[in-house]
Amino acid sequence: MRKLIKSGTIVTAADTYIGDILIDNGLIAMIGIGLNANDAEIVDASGCYVFPGGVDPHTHLDMPFGGTVTRDDFESGTIAAAFGGTTTIVDFCLTAKGKPLADAVQTWHAKSGDKAVIDYGFHLMVSEVTDDVLLELPRIIEEEGITSLKVFMAYKNVLQADDGTLYRMLQVAKEQGALVMVHAENGDVIDYLIREALAAGNTAPIYHALTRPAVLEGEATGRAAALTELADSQLYVVHVTCAEAVWKIAEARKKGLRVYGETCPQYLVLDQTDLEKPDFEGAKYVWSPPLREKWNQQVLWDALWNGQLQAVGSDQCSFDFKGQKELGIDDFSKIPNGGPTIEDRFSLLYSEGVHKGRLSINKFVDIIATAGAKLFGLFPQKGTIAIGSDADIVIFDPSVERTLSAETHHMKVDYNAFEGMQVFGEPVSVLVRGEFVIRDRAFVGKPGSGRYLHRRRFGDAEKQAVKKPPAGGSG
Amino acid sequence: MRKLIKSGTIVTAADTYIGDILIDNGLIAMIGIGLNANDAEIVDASGCYVFPGGVDPHTHLDMPFGGTVTRDDFESGTIAAAFGGTTTIVDFCLTAKGKPLADAVQTWHAKSGDKAVIDYGFHLMVSEVTDDVLLELPRIIEEEGITSLKVFMAYKNVLQADDGTLYRMLQVAKEQGALVMVHAENGDVIDYLIREALAAGNTAPIYHALTRPAVLEGEATGRAAALTELADSQLYVVHVTCAEAVWKIAEARKKGLRVYGETCPQYLVLDQTDLEKPDFEGAKYVWSPPLREKWNQQVLWDALWNGQLQAVGSDQCSFDFKGQKELGIDDFSKIPNGGPTIEDRFSLLYSEGVHKGRLSINKFVDIIATAGAKLFGLFPQKGTIAIGSDADIVIFDPSVERTLSAETHHMKVDYNAFEGMQVFGEPVSVLVRGEFVIRDRAFVGKPGSGRYLHRRRFGDAEKQAVKKPPAGGSG
Amino acid sequence: MRKLIKSGTIVTAADTYIGDILIDNGLIAMIGIGLNANDAEIVDASGCYVFPGGVDPHTHLDMPFGGTVTRDDFESGTIAAAFGGTTTIVDFCLTAKGKPLADAVQTWHAKSGDKAVIDYGFHLMVSEVTDDVLLELPRIIEEEGITSLKVFMAYKNVLQADDGTLYRMLQVAKEQGALVMVHAENGDVIDYLIREALAAGNTAPIYHALTRPAVLEGEATGRAAALTELADSQLYVVHVTCAEAVWKIAEARKKGLRVYGETCPQYLVLDQTDLEKPDFEGAKYVWSPPLREKWNQQVLWDALWNGQLQAVGSDQCSFDFKGQKELGIDDFSKIPNGGPTIEDRFSLLYSEGVHKGRLSINKFVDIIATAGAKLFGLFPQKGTIAIGSDADIVIFDPSVERTLSAETHHMKVDYNAFEGMQVFGEPVSVLVRGEFVIRDRAFVGKPGSGRYLHRRRFGDAEKQAVKKPPAGGSG
Amino acid sequence: MRKLIKSGTIVTAADTYIGDILIDNGLIAMIGIGLNANDAEIVDASGCYVFPGGVDPHTHLDMPFGGTVTRDDFESGTIAAAFGGTTTIVDFCLTAKGKPLADAVQTWHAKSGDKAVIDYGFHLMVSEVTDDVLLELPRIIEEEGITSLKVFMAYKNVLQADDGTLYRMLQVAKEQGALVMVHAENGDVIDYLIREALAAGNTAPIYHALTRPAVLEGEATGRAAALTELADSQLYVVHVTCAEAVWKIAEARKKGLRVYGETCPQYLVLDQTDLEKPDFEGAKYVWSPPLREKWNQQVLWDALWNGQLQAVGSDQCSFDFKGQKELGIDDFSKIPNGGPTIEDRFSLLYSEGVHKGRLSINKFVDIIATAGAKLFGLFPQKGTIAIGSDADIVIFDPSVERTLSAETHHMKVDYNAFEGMQVFGEPVSVLVRGEFVIRDRAFVGKPGSGRYLHRRRFGDAEKQAVKKPPAGGSG
Repeated sequence: MRKLIKSGTIVTAADTYIGDILIDNGLIAMIGIGLNANDAEIVDASGCYVFPGGVDPHTHLDMPFGGTVTRDDFESGTIAAAFGGTTTIVDFCLTAKGKPLADAVQTWHAKSGDKAVIDYGFHLMVSEVTDDVLLELPRIIEEEGITSLKVFMAYKNVLQADDGTLYRMLQVAKEQGALVMVHAENGDVIDYLIREALAAGNTAPIYHALTRPAVLEGEATGRAAALTELADSQLYVVHVTCAEAVWKIAEARKKGLRVYGETCPQYLVLDQTDLEKPDFEGAKYVWSPPLREKWNQQVLWDALWNGQLQAVGSDQCSFDFKGQKELGIDDFSKIPNGGPTIEDRFSLLYSEGVHKGRLSINKFVDIIATAGAKLFGLFPQKGTIAIGSDADIVIFDPSVERTLSAETHHMKVDYNAFEGMQVFGEPVSVLVRGEFVIRDRAFVGKPGSGRYLHRRRFGDAEKQAVKKPPAGGSG
Repeated sequence: MRKLIKSGTIVTAADTYIGDILIDNGLIAMIGIGLNANDAEIVDASGCYVFPGGVDPHTHLDMPFGGTVTRDDFESGTIAAAFGGTTTIVDFCLTAKGKPLADAVQTWHAKSGDKAVIDYGFHLMVSEVTDDVLLELPRIIEEEGITSLKVFMAYKNVLQADDGTLYRMLQVAKEQGALVMVHAENGDVIDYLIREALAAGNTAPIYHALTRPAVLEGEATGRAAALTELADSQLYVVHVTCAEAVWKIAEARKKGLRVYGETCPQYLVLDQTDLEKPDFEGAKYVWSPPLREKWNQQVLWDALWNGQLQAVGSDQCSFDFKGQKELGIDDFSKIPNGGPTIEDRFSLLYSEGVHKGRLSINKFVDIIATAGAKLFGLFPQKGTIAIGSDADIVIFDPSVERTLSAETHHMKVDYNAFEGMQVFGEPVSVLVRGEFVIRDRAFVGKPGSGRYLHRRRFGDAEKQAVKKPPAGGSG
Repeated sequence: MRKLIKSGTIVTAADTYIGDILIDNGLIAMIGIGLNANDAEIVDASGCYVFPGGVDPHTHLDMPFGGTVTRDDFESGTIAAAFGGTTTIVDFCLTAKGKPLADAVQTWHAKSGDKAVIDYGFHLMVSEVTDDVLLELPRIIEEEGITSLKVFMAYKNVLQADDGTLYRMLQVAKEQGALVMVHAENGDVIDYLIREALAAGNTAPIYHALTRPAVLEGEATGRAAALTELADSQLYVVHVTCAEAVWKIAEARKKGLRVYGETCPQYLVLDQTDLEKPDFEGAKYVWSPPLREKWNQQVLWDALWNGQLQAVGSDQCSFDFKGQKELGIDDFSKIPNGGPTIEDRFSLLYSEGVHKGRLSINKFVDIIATAGAKLFGLFPQKGTIAIGSDADIVIFDPSVERTLSAETHHMKVDYNAFEGMQVFGEPVSVLVRGEFVIRDRAFVGKPGSGRYLHRRRFGDAEKQAVKKPPAGGSG
Repeated sequence: MRKLIKSGTIVTAADTYIGDILIDNGLIAMIGIGLNANDAEIVDASGCYVFPGGVDPHTHLDMPFGGTVTRDDFESGTIAAAFGGTTTIVDFCLTAKGKPLADAVQTWHAKSGDKAVIDYGFHLMVSEVTDDVLLELPRIIEEEGITSLKVFMAYKNVLQADDGTLYRMLQVAKEQGALVMVHAENGDVIDYLIREALAAGNTAPIYHALTRPAVLEGEATGRAAALTELADSQLYVVHVTCAEAVWKIAEARKKGLRVYGETCPQYLVLDQTDLEKPDFEGAKYVWSPPLREKWNQQVLWDALWNGQLQAVGSDQCSFDFKGQKELGIDDFSKIPNGGPTIEDRFSLLYSEGVHKGRLSINKFVDIIATAGAKLFGLFPQKGTIAIGSDADIVIFDPSVERTLSAETHHMKVDYNAFEGMQVFGEPVSVLVRGEFVIRDRAFVGKPGSGRYLHRRRFGDAEKQAVKKPPAGGSG
């Protein structure tokens, strides 16, 4: 059955206008004023914003880490995402050294296929370059539509790749039309700092931050950008936290390099002092890279505003405080890294960004949905409200004032990283391909209804020649 | 009568999709696939891009300058603009010292009212700050909807304002919600360099460039940004030509300052060597600031791509080679500054930007139409294709390959600054508020049909809190 | 009679060693270990540093300002300088518009001839460029040996020159081998800010700082550097106070421009909060540019260390608190600008620089004596301890710990800007051309014994070709 | 017997004056005008400069490399150095993994003890951090006076250390008062680029440069500076070749970091095109990092002038063209890296620096002698002409014009890297500790007469507190 979303204030990365949206066959078929469609279900959106569903380019669901596994899997994780206004995620598929990449992809399909309630794609993590990997990569990119390759510059002896591997991946990315994603921290030095801290008996959560100083994130970011310049390739720096890293990205972009940056809600609103909370509560705030000194927040907001950072991902990677975060009670380095952020990403950015006047509402949509979709080959199917696009839609009531809390959130994890924060605005109803997943604040979706997204190659939405209008599609 | 533009590839600053547009009462009423409207005139756009009409934020029509007057007035100028795909201009209203600002505005209404074939607004040039000016400004801003104030840092003893005046205007702009525009060159030193060159017998057109070196544009740009920082106000730097100036703008934006920059087509495709053309032909290329060394072009393109420059204006200011440019045959300082660019701005940016892969097509639309409309208080009425916006539309055939020339252009001036350049793409038909002005490459409009635009106050589309969806309008 | 300074630790801008110095005929004749000279008076310097006498490149003695005149003239001022370890000053000769430059120089000779107890030269202040000035300048430079030209970018309607004048002076400096000195603040905007503050009833001393914000010093410094680049000339920025200005100088030097910078002791140890002292005491701390936020101090120290600033001048310009500073009790803009610093410059830099480990002792000597002598054409006669140089020598006891105070200082002014500060080290005895001026902490000199210094043209000690060793002199 | 060097123009890092120097017991005992010493041998230096002997902080003598060994050992190498005006070198002592550091030091003593004709010290190369190394290091530093530790960021699988090791060495250096020296190139990526080039059949010498791009030197330099910041330690970047690296050093110094940089004569006068010389001659110009595009030379000169680079080392590492360089005739990666530069360093810097007006003569002395001595704990024994210093003296005739050539040089190697270059000035006589090694252009020294230099700990000559004059020594 067709749906007609009436009288909302429709917002895209460019536009803001009042109108009606006709959804047909899961797609946006018509937009106008005073639309009628006798056969369509009417959804009243008056007084609300009608946003494209959020695109979260950075999640870790059902992911093993340090002997445990993230609390949220593709079911609870995507339900929470949907509650929060996100209708598409791209999750990281972990590979294992010495095993075919395809095995890892299969594992991830198995984790997600029956569970996801929103659509999803995969990034591929690559930690070594062997002949087998080089042979297999083009096939994975082509057949699986996995067009982004993640390289870690940190987590020595675990995930960390050396600079030669990073450079090699940048070359592959260039040849194959993929985008390299990088976790930019200097793992060699961090490894030493951690050992030094532990040897000195410094085991509390705050030492997580102190052993991963901002200078090492800035350093690695600059290094990755230098390699990108050399390879004439494209780079997406995940979870940028600090001025040092922002400035390296800006410097690269000044040269015309296709270097992009993402930050996360936690870096925009939390800071290093949270790691000092008593009773081991600081462990809740253990992310890598860590939360920084508060002044960095303004630098991140400015960088979103002035276009030096393009997207905000959640880096969702949830662990319970009880039983999981507690693994590190005697040793901060054993605290599982990550936190529950998939649900609040959208609202936090709206509330702190738009409501507080830091970002225009169009820029907000770009950051939360459109830019990610474009960079990761999902546009125009995802990330916007336009004719022919999937009807992934968030009806958002900006008049609501509410408090974020573990008591009300939908992630399975036992705490909320933003506990007690007041935000303005709430996703009231959320549709994926024209079907309600959230309706009037209640989950009405179905596990397994989410679809895997075969993504397009990296076309650099910002630097792409379009010599003639596409014959039958768009882009 | 309603119109239905069928099957074009519709492009906005965010989106690209195939669809149909229904125009009703001069506004965009509906967008969809397979739209039908029995009573509507059908316009086939298949194989073509459907762009929002260009917004040119920088024109000088019917403007007196150095004892002569620009060749194109509001009739020929706006006709040429329309041929080129531009449907909105904002022209500079020159004030006279000691006279009411309102007089100047009246003069400009008189120049434009019966002639314009597209819609237009005015910027107000301010060269001195008196009590009278300070009293009158708020009224002009409110009643005339003139929400941008131009200050010249060059043209000593003619238009140049001192830094105190610039600072004062930045304060007024902040209080009143206006945007200060600045011509950023150090007039004091240029004045001396010109006198020195002439005294040395250096009278040829190339000395125009040599007496206005890039370092003086960079200096003045940095100065204007510093004053903007101090005043906590907003600044738009017109006609940025060189790396020195781009870098100052980028530095200001890095700090979160609302500093914006515009470049012009001439700076993107021409260079200083053009001023050395024999037989006084160099005079055709006399703009202020002047054309620069060629390497600056790449810096400008990169700055458009990475968002450090936001818009491209034409700085249309046309003088005949014969009789007008020739005024400076014995003295480069007497060559009227400016050139005919209003017609080719749109196509040049498409061809050199999109066709050559330097800019995505969405970025192109942003630069050529949307950003200007947002910065100058015309959005969403102008600058986009969205429900409720004016149906200002360009049907653009990207398959055409053609040569720019005075023989075929529609400006009244006797030369074309881009003579012989090959471009890809052509505006085939152009509508303003739903009415054809250009149809199948022919002018079908009517002088006087263009409407004056009472512009909104500067809301900083990029940094504006929007706390609730608007009740009845949008924005 | 000859003198033999025995067993001191002799320090130059390069060297530190224990040795004896034989002075003959006012010059340094011999340096060695275990020197004997039967006919020489022995001066024991064991346990002391033997420094070259300080060169203060920036003083204002007996200077009229705002209806009053500085408290210290060439007698009290140079006596205080000598007590403080300074044996050479270069004072600013104020010119009057419309009068011959030579008149001003004559006035300054009259002020100083009978009074100075140490040697002195003059800088020439130039505030306008007329044909007369241009004609006279080369003669003044040649005949008077006044090889530095001061231009003010601030003090609107009083001393301020426009950018054309500054540029013109840079050209003259290049042609004539002179060095342009610039007071870099944006006078136009400051003038407006002052009027605005007063209109708002903000009359307290702190408004002196608030109406001269650092951004306007940074701006003007960048502007002066840009003009220097254009003129391919040389520039010395006086009294640099803040990061904004330091960074502009560093940027210029990075390009290889001969741009030099000076800071003053007050900016290294005092800060903006001093202006908020109660009972109008803040007036004692009124300098232009003003004291800045404390964090700038570290930037200044770093810049001295890393060579981006070269010298420390006192900017001595003393006014009594009673009767003079009080002129501004109801209006901060009427507070005479300046303070008493000539006496403590040397010791403060030693104590805060060397004693606290911020500067090597050789760098200290360079900053306090050698660099100034080289930049202003006084080297090797002044500024070092070397064979053939004037025997201007400071015997300095680093073991003394003492407190700066008006009660003990020798300036005529009724307060000390550094009242209560503890410093390490004290000039015990001071010789000028081999004669004691200070001996065992007592003044033993004679007014009028100081000699006028005919300075050499600017040779840029740092970028000067020396193609063969000089025949009879050195350099 | 004492010596009296008469009537030369004596130059130090600070001073230039005509005078006589009395040498007694190998030390500088007295300096003056018209000195007499009946018992002293008179050496006439009139018409000549009298410089302190050059200090070359970067040599590789008798060093095994890639299956061969450098052509010059401590005899031929130091003789050539002496001919060139250098009287002190600091050579790199190569360690072997798994063996005691002391073994390596013994090996180096064995290589040098009987051969050197000038004085010498050792740097210690460290490529891994084991408990043994950490235990032994303080002893080596203390007992051997080896107070500088070299770390390679390049030469993967051979000399390259990882970032953890570099960081660890920076910590050791801080604790022990040593200076870390770093070869800054990204070895991981270079390793890959070399394999890629060879796989593509690109074996010619030019590929040496193309596989070691400047961006990778800049990257590594920035990385080393970041680690230095983190460790709050001190760093000396050897053989800086390009703008990218200079700018990173300048950026670090701007923050007040004790980061120092050295360049080499080859980077100042040769460029990448030399590697393209036909008949495999390009192999003569294979250094690591490689010669760069010519424009970098100006950046290096400017950085020497403005103090961002402090020293010029030779990086002497000579291999015959025949038989040694030829090892790489089929594979550029097998060309032994390095060239013969120890002899011409001094004269080249004088001729290109001072004679051409790029550097003052005092700055030249600082760069060629004083700064190196200060940074490496040899001052004031070495590096200057001052009372009590070793009488290491160069009598230099600036009027000579000569041509550098293998035919006339004294290195054992079969080519000269600067063949055919004309230079101005020549060391005529050279004394070490008061004894002639070169006299009237002839070698008169004795192998084994050179002494090993037990160096002082890093005291950071530029940032060192000196709270009281030393009792008996100096510094």
